[in-house]
Amino acid sequence: MTQPSYPVIRLKPKTSPQAVRRGAPWVYDNELVTDRRTKAIAPGAIALLQDAERASLALVAVNPASRIARVLDLDTSQTINRAWLAARLRHALGLRERLFDAPFYRLIHAEADGLPGVVIDRFGDTCVIQPNAAWADAMLEDLAAALTEVTGASCILKNAGGRARALEGLDDVGAVLSGAAPDGPVHVPMNGAIYLADLMQGQKTGLFFDQRPNHAFAARLSKGASVLDVFSHVGGFSLAALAQGAASALAVDGSEPALALARGGADAMGVAERLQTRKGDAFDVLTQLGAEGARFDVVICDPPAFAPSKKALEAGLRAYERTARLAAPLVAEGGYLALCSCSHAADMDAFRRASLRGIGRGLHETGAPGRRAQLIHTGGAGPDHPMHPQLAESGYLKALFFRL
Amino acid sequence: MTQPSYPVIRLKPKTSPQAVRRGAPWVYDNELVTDRRTKAIAPGAIALLQDAERASLALVAVNPASRIARVLDLDTSQTINRAWLAARLRHALGLRERLFDAPFYRLIHAEADGLPGVVIDRFGDTCVIQPNAAWADAMLEDLAAALTEVTGASCILKNAGGRARALEGLDDVGAVLSGAAPDGPVHVPMNGAIYLADLMQGQKTGLFFDQRPNHAFAARLSKGASVLDVFSHVGGFSLAALAQGAASALAVDGSEPALALARGGADAMGVAERLQTRKGDAFDVLTQLGAEGARFDVVICDPPAFAPSKKALEAGLRAYERTARLAAPLVAEGGYLALCSCSHAADMDAFRRASLRGIGRGLHETGAPGRRAQLIHTGGAGPDHPMHPQLAESGYLKALFFRL
Repeated sequence: MTQPSYPVIRLKPKTSPQAVRRGAPWVYDNELVTDRRTKAIAPGAIALLQDAERASLALVAVNPASRIARVLDLDTSQTINRAWLAARLRHALGLRERLFDAPFYRLIHAEADGLPGVVIDRFGDTCVIQPNAAWADAMLEDLAAALTEVTGASCILKNAGGRARALEGLDDVGAVLSGAAPDGPVHVPMNGAIYLADLMQGQKTGLFFDQRPNHAFAARLSKGASVLDVFSHVGGFSLAALAQGAASALAVDGSEPALALARGGADAMGVAERLQTRKGDAFDVLTQLGAEGARFDVVICDPPAFAPSKKALEAGLRAYERTARLAAPLVAEGGYLALCSCSHAADMDAFRRASLRGIGRGLHETGAPGRRAQLIHTGGAGPDHPMHPQLAESGYLKALFFRL
Repeated sequence: MTQPSYPVIRLKPKTSPQAVRRGAPWVYDNELVTDRRTKAIAPGAIALLQDAERASLALVAVNPASRIARVLDLDTSQTINRAWLAARLRHALGLRERLFDAPFYRLIHAEADGLPGVVIDRFGDTCVIQPNAAWADAMLEDLAAALTEVTGASCILKNAGGRARALEGLDDVGAVLSGAAPDGPVHVPMNGAIYLADLMQGQKTGLFFDQRPNHAFAARLSKGASVLDVFSHVGGFSLAALAQGAASALAVDGSEPALALARGGADAMGVAERLQTRKGDAFDVLTQLGAEGARFDVVICDPPAFAPSKKALEAGLRAYERTARLAAPLVAEGGYLALCSCSHAADMDAFRRASLRGIGRGLHETGAPGRRAQLIHTGGAGPDHPMHPQLAESGYLKALFFRL
């Protein structure tokens, strides 16, 4: 097949082409020559990136709205089409098939899997695409077709809830791209548990696969234990713990639909009598439990991103410290406390320090003394969430496991 | 029991007692009042640490030779004796019994387990103590007795090979402290493999437990694969991979005794025909394999600490980069490369950058091009190697898993 003639964009004379040659995933618009011609390039179009000397560097996806050009391929002889997408999907599938026994995983993790701005989660025969960049939105039909070809999935959904879509000038309208949408929540087997994922209504793609290894580690600590799972969503930690023999689990979340899915999972597992749920603000519930003198062998707090941006860092770290301060007194002597952060802006050292401050400080309100801790394990996102090497310092998910 | 009258040492007037109260593991000698009386305290003696106002802070172990006083207990009413040691051992055992099905693990990881300077590894009925601080050496008989009481171990060995012992003014003489030393290498079950640990002759305590989760992760990638295990020691990665169905493994090490133990493990597992070993300098062997055009599905490099100190950091990072540069061309397309560092001085970011430089650069010598990588997993030491919260930034073991 002849390559279509892609429009050309160029690096400014002072911009070194080395960063792109060495694998940089993005080129910023202030590094690019902008003129009437480049301004006319449609959002999401594929372009040929050249250096100032007109040497071809890469095929990139451009979108004036997003201020970055995304590198798609350093082999500029390629054609970005359905076959190219299928090759990237096949490569990504190879990793997941090696890692997992059942087809439930993140199949495409954006830049790290060679499809910038694209997230695809697989739930058995159903795949959910988040096309969070204009180029992928423009090629959505090809992407869905390639996905069907590579995975054999019978249903492909578009999830348009990603916040990045607005930055890219894209709509927020979900859709069924092929096949019939699942009739109710999907059953997702993971770590011996069964989760219910509501792919049409839920947060993001209905289930977070990224915590899988941390669920597994917490579950390993939970045999015979009483478990408190705060910010439980659909019961990620609770159900894994019950699957590994926890005596009881209390899931706390602000969303009743999420808690209903947690109970549904427990039902499907036949452990409903060991799961309790409590709807409420997590900080309020932690405070109440403290006042009740409740104690658990294992306490897990997996809050939303308290520090989603650099600007929110200080307030976010205070919220992490507060979480630790309220949770630590609920842990039985010799028990375990898992604290998670999915904040890009809070790096590992800052998050660990905030957590340790909270654990060590005690509660003036109740007179609960500070606790001492061992750090027994530090976990990150599962391997179906690979990192682009040049974005590796931004590993967002951190899980700290303490013994008190 | 009445507390013995411990000698008193005091913080200098300008030294805040807050650090100790908040759990600092050490007090440096320049923070302590030194006079004729304190100089007369015997190395390894237990002392009562007070602040400048004579308020009691902690029981500490002092050793003029080591320049630090080690905090043993903030409860100054305690007596540091066999019962106290047994309580610490029991607490540590609780964690390991929760984590592991079989009694093969690091039982005491020094400061993090409340016994500063003490390392104890358990190999079933045999325990190996490394008393790397004077206080523990002085109490070795009590420690061995407490260990027998808590674990029921039938044999207790003293390993005096730790480099820290010289700094503490201690001998380097190993000993059988109780029971009969094992008659030959001990069989250690781990990750489905069987390792042979030579507790009387081997490096350190004959086997490193710290890589257990990284062995497991590499093994998960190795089903049906050809595996190259460089700096293999007794076959940590090779045997785990073979246990999980690797088609073949080549273990490379400079020590023929270590390779003989690897072969012995493979024999015991019944997979001897799938293990090859090659004795030699790792860099030489990597270079030879490159020249032979050899390719492996999974390549693992787990070198000794190239950057054991801040002074050695730069040279160490160059060695890590060189390791990556020589290893990457040996990885098949779509295969996996695991690079490990056990250097305290090289932090995660520095080690990852050095590794990525090596992977990306290619070999001028052979014309092998640089490779592109995804980072799919970052691992640390296993949870039987907990970290003291105030020493947590020094997590020494790093394992980076790349897909090329």
